[in-house]
Amino acid sequence: MDSVTVIGMISIIMAGLTMAIGSIAPAIGEANAVTQALKSIAQQPDEANTISRTLFVGLAMIESTAIYCFVLSMILLFANPFWNAVTG
Amino acid sequence: MDSVTVIGMISIIMAGLTMAIGSIAPAIGEANAVTQALKSIAQQPDEANTISRTLFVGLAMIESTAIYCFVLSMILLFANPFWNAVTG
Amino acid sequence: MDSVTVIGMISIIMAGLTMAIGSIAPAIGEANAVTQALKSIAQQPDEANTISRTLFVGLAMIESTAIYCFVLSMILLFANPFWNAVTG
Amino acid sequence: MDSVTVIGMISIIMAGLTMAIGSIAPAIGEANAVTQALKSIAQQPDEANTISRTLFVGLAMIESTAIYCFVLSMILLFANPFWNAVTG
Amino acid sequence: MDSVTVIGMISIIMAGLTMAIGSIAPAIGEANAVTQALKSIAQQPDEANTISRTLFVGLAMIESTAIYCFVLSMILLFANPFWNAVTG
Amino acid sequence: MDSVTVIGMISIIMAGLTMAIGSIAPAIGEANAVTQALKSIAQQPDEANTISRTLFVGLAMIESTAIYCFVLSMILLFANPFWNAVTG
Amino acid sequence: MDSVTVIGMISIIMAGLTMAIGSIAPAIGEANAVTQALKSIAQQPDEANTISRTLFVGLAMIESTAIYCFVLSMILLFANPFWNAVTG
Amino acid sequence: MDSVTVIGMISIIMAGLTMAIGSIAPAIGEANAVTQALKSIAQQPDEANTISRTLFVGLAMIESTAIYCFVLSMILLFANPFWNAVTG
Amino acid sequence: MDSVTVIGMISIIMAGLTMAIGSIAPAIGEANAVTQALKSIAQQPDEANTISRTLFVGLAMIESTAIYCFVLSMILLFANPFWNAVTG
Amino acid sequence: MDSVTVIGMISIIMAGLTMAIGSIAPAIGEANAVTQALKSIAQQPDEANTISRTLFVGLAMIESTAIYCFVLSMILLFANPFWNAVTG
Amino acid sequence: MDSVTVIGMISIIMAGLTMAIGSIAPAIGEANAVTQALKSIAQQPDEANTISRTLFVGLAMIESTAIYCFVLSMILLFANPFWNAVTG
Amino acid sequence: MDSVTVIGMISIIMAGLTMAIGSIAPAIGEANAVTQALKSIAQQPDEANTISRTLFVGLAMIESTAIYCFVLSMILLFANPFWNAVTG
Amino acid sequence: MDSVTVIGMISIIMAGLTMAIGSIAPAIGEANAVTQALKSIAQQPDEANTISRTLFVGLAMIESTAIYCFVLSMILLFANPFWNAVTG
Amino acid sequence: MDSVTVIGMISIIMAGLTMAIGSIAPAIGEANAVTQALKSIAQQPDEANTISRTLFVGLAMIESTAIYCFVLSMILLFANPFWNAVTG
Repeated sequence: MDSVTVIGMISIIMAGLTMAIGSIAPAIGEANAVTQALKSIAQQPDEANTISRTLFVGLAMIESTAIYCFVLSMILLFANPFWNAVTG
Repeated sequence: MDSVTVIGMISIIMAGLTMAIGSIAPAIGEANAVTQALKSIAQQPDEANTISRTLFVGLAMIESTAIYCFVLSMILLFANPFWNAVTG
Repeated sequence: MDSVTVIGMISIIMAGLTMAIGSIAPAIGEANAVTQALKSIAQQPDEANTISRTLFVGLAMIESTAIYCFVLSMILLFANPFWNAVTG
Repeated sequence: MDSVTVIGMISIIMAGLTMAIGSIAPAIGEANAVTQALKSIAQQPDEANTISRTLFVGLAMIESTAIYCFVLSMILLFANPFWNAVTG
Repeated sequence: MDSVTVIGMISIIMAGLTMAIGSIAPAIGEANAVTQALKSIAQQPDEANTISRTLFVGLAMIESTAIYCFVLSMILLFANPFWNAVTG
Repeated sequence: MDSVTVIGMISIIMAGLTMAIGSIAPAIGEANAVTQALKSIAQQPDEANTISRTLFVGLAMIESTAIYCFVLSMILLFANPFWNAVTG
Repeated sequence: MDSVTVIGMISIIMAGLTMAIGSIAPAIGEANAVTQALKSIAQQPDEANTISRTLFVGLAMIESTAIYCFVLSMILLFANPFWNAVTG
Repeated sequence: MDSVTVIGMISIIMAGLTMAIGSIAPAIGEANAVTQALKSIAQQPDEANTISRTLFVGLAMIESTAIYCFVLSMILLFANPFWNAVTG
Repeated sequence: MDSVTVIGMISIIMAGLTMAIGSIAPAIGEANAVTQALKSIAQQPDEANTISRTLFVGLAMIESTAIYCFVLSMILLFANPFWNAVTG
Repeated sequence: MDSVTVIGMISIIMAGLTMAIGSIAPAIGEANAVTQALKSIAQQPDEANTISRTLFVGLAMIESTAIYCFVLSMILLFANPFWNAVTG
Repeated sequence: MDSVTVIGMISIIMAGLTMAIGSIAPAIGEANAVTQALKSIAQQPDEANTISRTLFVGLAMIESTAIYCFVLSMILLFANPFWNAVTG
Repeated sequence: MDSVTVIGMISIIMAGLTMAIGSIAPAIGEANAVTQALKSIAQQPDEANTISRTLFVGLAMIESTAIYCFVLSMILLFANPFWNAVTG
Repeated sequence: MDSVTVIGMISIIMAGLTMAIGSIAPAIGEANAVTQALKSIAQQPDEANTISRTLFVGLAMIESTAIYCFVLSMILLFANPFWNAVTG
Repeated sequence: MDSVTVIGMISIIMAGLTMAIGSIAPAIGEANAVTQALKSIAQQPDEANTISRTLFVGLAMIESTAIYCFVLSMILLFANPFWNAVTG
């Protein structure tokens, strides 16, 4: 296999794997946070606003790691420096 | 195997794996969130509206990671830049 | 092995694996949601309607990931773009 | 090995694996749902009808993933498009 | 190895594996259901009939996945379409 | 290796593996059921008859999966259709 | 390696593995059953007879899977049909 | 490698592995049973005799699986029928 | 494969793997911290300020490990000293 | 590699592995038994004698599996029948 | 592959793996410590100062292991003695 | 590789592995025993002597498995019968 | 590959792996200890001094294993006796 | 590869692995012991001396397994009998 095929093959593999593995923890984590928020609202309805606000800040922090992975996948597919080097 | 076969083979593998692995965590996570919502409604029926609203926001956030994976699979199957390069 | 065999072989493998792996999490997740719904009904029979409604929305969300995988398997078997390319 | 052998071999492997793996989660999930239903009936005998009805809807949803896998296995054994292509 | 040997070998392997893997989850699941039924009877002896009836329906649903696997193993051993094709 | 050796080798391997793997879940499951039966008898001695009857039905259902595996092993050793074909 | 060596080698491997794997679950399961019996006797000394009787029936059922494996190992070592075929 | 070396090598490997794997579950299981016996004696000192008797019966049953493995290892080392065949 | 291909291939693989693996623990960890914060606010609404402040310090510490991994991935893609050496 | 080297190599490997694996379960099991004994003494100081006696019997039974493994290792190193056969 | 390529390849792999693996435990550990701190503050608001101080000392200790890994990765990338030796 | 190298290599590997694996269980087990002893002393300070005595007997039993492994490692390094045979 | 490359490659791999694996347990362990210290301070503020002192002694003991690994990594990178031997 | 390289390579690998694996269990174990000591002091401040003394004895026993591994690593690096034999 020539370099172009190898680099392309590896890029596809890593783009998929990074996205697949990288979606596990955020999904589980966000689910845990949402789960607790629902439990807390049922327990303290008067603090629903404070709980929601803290929940959304937390979800944003957790979602950020999924977005890191998504960005990396997109870079590997559409702005891959090694691909440009071997096909340049 | 020539480049076309290799790139096609890898694309099929990663499309399937990404979707398969990427569906595990959201399904589990959404189930946990729904589970807790049912528990909270049974515990605090008066807050059913607030609980449902928070649940739907959370489900949307969690579903987003499954959709990232589905989008990536579709890109690999129907808009694959490496495939276009080797078959162009 | 020629390209046709390889692409066909990989397509069969991924169709099966995607469906097999992709059925684990939804089945477990739906079972958890149903389990909790039964528990909640036993605890709060008066809220059976609200619980059922929320359960069905949740089951639909969870089932969606299984359907993504089933769709992908069907695409790989009957509308595979790479298969069309190598046999065209 | 020629194409016919390879495609046949892979089809047998995936038919078995898909059925085998695909039977794990539904069996566990249905058992959990049944388990909870028995617990709920013992706790609230008056709601046995509502519980049974919800249980059967849930079992049908969960069994659906096992049936997806069984359908896919049967397709691979008796209506395999790639097999038809290589033996046609 | 010729095609006959390969197809025969693979069929034996998958028949055994499918049965072996496919017996794990139903056995565990049925045990859980039976376990809970015993617990519920000890807790609510008056509902023994309802519990037994629900238990038998559930056991039938769970046993069905083991039977799917057993059927598939028997098909692979005694009615294998690929075997007929290579030895025909 | 000729076909006779290969088929014999594979048959021995699968006979052993199927029996070995297939004995794990029933043994664990029966132990759980027996465990619960002992617990229930200690809790409700008056229902010992109902508990024993339900236990024996459940043990029979669970033992059935172990027997499926044992039957398959015996078929592979003493009534193997592929062995007959290659040595016929 | 000739057929005699291969069949002998595989038979030894499977005899050992089947016995080794097949002893895990019964040992654990019997330990659980015995553990519960001890707990139940400490809780309900008056039912010691019923508990012992149920325990021994259960132990016999569980031990049966270990004996299936032991029988299979002995068959592989001393009454192996494939060995007789290749050395006949 | 000639047959004598292969059979000897495999026999050593399986003798060790069978003993090593086969000692895990009995050791854990016996420890659990002993643990529970100590707990039960502390809870019901008056039933120490019944508890000890049941414990010893249980330990004998559990130890039996370890002894099966030890016997098999000794057979493989000192009364190996395949070794006698290849060196005869 | 020449050096350029190998170094490029390895860099892509490690960039993806580092980001993918490195996003698991922070996502889970942040979710746990957010979960506890929501629980604590529901339990002690008066300390919401202290809890939020401690939470944000903790999230920053945890996020730092994800950022280490992201930085390393970026270095591997865009400022790789070995890449410069082999292509220089 | 000649037979002497192979048999020696395998003997060393299995002696080490058998001892290493075989020390895991007894160490864990004895620790559990000792742990429970300490808990029971703290709970029922008057039964310290009965508890100690039962503990020592149990430790001896558990230690026996570790000793089986140690004996087997020593046999493999210093009284290996296959080694004597190949070097005789 | 020549020495330069090999050393470079291995250095990239280990830099990534060390950082990736080395970020798991500190992130989880810090999250646990922060989680407990939030719980303790909600339980004992008057001791918030002591708790914060102990928390920061602990976080510094835990973060140190992540920094060891980061330092090692940087050494491998930018001050690698073996790289200097093979390229010198 | 000649026999001396192979035997030496294998001896080093097994000496390290045996010690490494063999130190896991005793360390964990001793920690559990010590943990429980601390808990029991805090619960029953008057029995500190009995607890300490039982703890030391137990630690000695558990440490014995670690010492078996250490002895075996030393034998492999400094009194290896196979090494003497190949270098004699 | 010549000796210099092999020894260098292995040294890099082991330096990284030792540090990476060796940082997992201390980080988790220290986090557990810190977690408990925070819990104990919240429960017994008057004993904060004794708790802190015991905590620091314990952290030092635990950190020591991480430092053993770091020292070994540094020895492998900068004072490697085998490297000196092959490059001397 | 000649003997010197092989022996050196294996020695480095085992020195690192032994230290890395051997540091996991002691670190976890010591952390558990310290954790319990902190809990016990908070529960029984008057027994702090007895608890500390028992803790230090236990830590010494647990640390001993880590030291066995460290000693073995040092022997492999600086006093390796096989290295002396192949380089002598």
